[in-house]
Amino acid sequence: MSGEEAAAAAQQQQKPEEQKKDTKQESKAEEEQQQQPPPPPPQQPEVSYRSLVLSGYGGYDKVKVVVKKGALVPKAGEILVRMKACGLNFADLIARQGLYDKLSSPPVTLGMEGSGIVEAVGEGVTDRKVGDKVMMLNKSGLWQEVVVLPANQSFIIPDGMSFEEAAAFLVNYITAYMMIFDFGNLRPNQSILIHMAAGGVGTAATQLSKTVKDVTIFGTSSASKHDAIKENGVTHPIDYRTMDYIEEVRKTSPKGVDIILDPLGGSDTCKAFNLLKPMGKLIIYGVANLLTGQKKNIVALAKTWWNQFSINAMQLLHSNKAICGFHLGYLDEESELIQSAVTKLIELYKQGKIRPKVDSVWPFEQVADAMRQMQERKNIGKVILSPEVKKEEVKKEEATKEVKEEATKAKKEE
Amino acid sequence: MSGEEAAAAAQQQQKPEEQKKDTKQESKAEEEQQQQPPPPPPQQPEVSYRSLVLSGYGGYDKVKVVVKKGALVPKAGEILVRMKACGLNFADLIARQGLYDKLSSPPVTLGMEGSGIVEAVGEGVTDRKVGDKVMMLNKSGLWQEVVVLPANQSFIIPDGMSFEEAAAFLVNYITAYMMIFDFGNLRPNQSILIHMAAGGVGTAATQLSKTVKDVTIFGTSSASKHDAIKENGVTHPIDYRTMDYIEEVRKTSPKGVDIILDPLGGSDTCKAFNLLKPMGKLIIYGVANLLTGQKKNIVALAKTWWNQFSINAMQLLHSNKAICGFHLGYLDEESELIQSAVTKLIELYKQGKIRPKVDSVWPFEQVADAMRQMQERKNIGKVILSPEVKKEEVKKEEATKEVKEEATKAKKEE
Repeated sequence: MSGEEAAAAAQQQQKPEEQKKDTKQESKAEEEQQQQPPPPPPQQPEVSYRSLVLSGYGGYDKVKVVVKKGALVPKAGEILVRMKACGLNFADLIARQGLYDKLSSPPVTLGMEGSGIVEAVGEGVTDRKVGDKVMMLNKSGLWQEVVVLPANQSFIIPDGMSFEEAAAFLVNYITAYMMIFDFGNLRPNQSILIHMAAGGVGTAATQLSKTVKDVTIFGTSSASKHDAIKENGVTHPIDYRTMDYIEEVRKTSPKGVDIILDPLGGSDTCKAFNLLKPMGKLIIYGVANLLTGQKKNIVALAKTWWNQFSINAMQLLHSNKAICGFHLGYLDEESELIQSAVTKLIELYKQGKIRPKVDSVWPFEQVADAMRQMQERKNIGKVILSPEVKKEEVKKEEATKEVKEEATKAKKEE
Repeated sequence: MSGEEAAAAAQQQQKPEEQKKDTKQESKAEEEQQQQPPPPPPQQPEVSYRSLVLSGYGGYDKVKVVVKKGALVPKAGEILVRMKACGLNFADLIARQGLYDKLSSPPVTLGMEGSGIVEAVGEGVTDRKVGDKVMMLNKSGLWQEVVVLPANQSFIIPDGMSFEEAAAFLVNYITAYMMIFDFGNLRPNQSILIHMAAGGVGTAATQLSKTVKDVTIFGTSSASKHDAIKENGVTHPIDYRTMDYIEEVRKTSPKGVDIILDPLGGSDTCKAFNLLKPMGKLIIYGVANLLTGQKKNIVALAKTWWNQFSINAMQLLHSNKAICGFHLGYLDEESELIQSAVTKLIELYKQGKIRPKVDSVWPFEQVADAMRQMQERKNIGKVILSPEVKKEEVKKEEATKEVKEEATKAKKEE
């Protein structure tokens, strides 16, 4: 996408490792230029902006703050946005380990969602204007101070929603909405099992399930989060670390449940299929069981593959059950479907029926801590990255500097 | 079920093959009786009634008219019904070949649905009375002149619906309804592909799809039935015998369709999965591809198994698609689900939005022709069996007798 292109062309102030790679890219670009007629001289002033770049697959340290320089100009149908908050998703963690095939090869700027303020609009864009507060979806590239992207991937932030909430809205709520109301077809008096009920999708799924009358919500999380998920709407919290969640559900609902959202994969998918009631729907939307450590874990991969659910038509025919796969990242060309879901979600937000929950906000420089927070399942709600350098941070740095200077002074005086 | 038990207990006038087996059953029953206190002497008079019994797995000739004798008494919660019309379903054809594991071993009375008039009610039955016109579902045993079954498997026939239409209602319309509105979640402006659109489920599915605004209906059938399926509501009829139905659908809808009902199995299921739009739903509800001849065809079985659709969680995850299996025969314990669907269907019937289409009515004695009509896909709508000996038949028989007598007379005179 254009944000990506601009970013790639503009990578300047980098660490030695990236600089090396960039030199190659630049010489390649020069070669291409020699074959084509010379481009018109750039009219736009160069700007510099910070960006979170995946330098290679692996642990938390592979995501680095890189300062890029270049002219960011929205083309026809695009907008330029100054980012205020960026959302962290499981797909980012999977992508960091090299397990997400929709992401381009590193070096690549991460980030599938975020919110900000429109600073410029390209030709033909009539429904966005400078100053609009927007939330956005993109294949990648949104963890950056300024971005350029197609206007139809942005949505106006409703009144009363903060930038942090907006950065926690799109991926989680669209995912939960389409799973529950399109595939799941949730209706009054039904039941649903939501794994990782304290996470981003889990929080959204709980709130959306509550909009239907008399729905029983089973939610798994560690015991310390039970108060939080209960407050959010979970009827029966289950501590998956100390209890067999299947047994716990059967105690309340011996026949099983109507809908199961499965972000785990591996043997948990098989268990879920067996836990479905007749006419029940299992919706697989992730493989969190792959994420056992910072780096790609071959044993976990093999185990998850080996134990993964598999079914044929004859088995399914007699089951009276549905299994569905959902992955928003693979719906990137379905703008109509997305637009329709977002319209309904914003309506529900305005009615006060749903509200994104922000777990924590981390500056770009602490992206490793932010990822750890999510990967180690410490979060309750969404983990947000802030592209802005916080005033307190600046103050703190200054304070540290002062302390150090004083210490040096004192040492000298000694 | 009790209809079955009564039938088994009452099997008297049978061919030698069945009598042998029955002797075994009787001696077993005698053993059981010796262990229990003797039952009170039967108060009810014995009646005799015709029944369609599967004598063994195989071709059309395996289903025979058998006259049974016995006292048919509804127990608590049951009703006694004099049948007026019986529905023929694909599951009966599959069962005849020994491919339906929900059916008891032969000899067994066939028949999963039918309609008739209540002649007696058991203890505790308050919502049915003698004279009620009802339509019924059962695991088997309804192809019989009189049956006993649980009252909650019967539904009052709405005004204006004939017994033949009522015998064409439950299996096809419940199946179509649950597939389209529970699994399929059909909404305005969507598209659906209905195979065998002229068949019982196909007819019902077309009418039900039409109740949703602006739905595009692709329907397959042989060319000779295109006028009929168009009149029933199919937007784009496709002759599957001379055309590639996938190509035909793509011509109108390049991105594919939202819902596909698949009664075929084998390689057609794989084709269907690929023809789904993002968020599309494939609902498998049969394996008509198994039925290539009168008897179980090992080659067709192997081919269908070999080519059958199979998928694992990881493949499904990235597909944004749903696959569902539906088989009403395996929902026999879900009376609430069934009741809820029937209530809605009767409402739609009363509104004039749906109406069962009867292809043909056959006397019990012509059950082989009835089965051939369906298996060779000659039918447009439902194939019905009539337990009554028609007056014309009686007349015809008398006429034949007269002709024969006259012929004999003439011969003698020669």
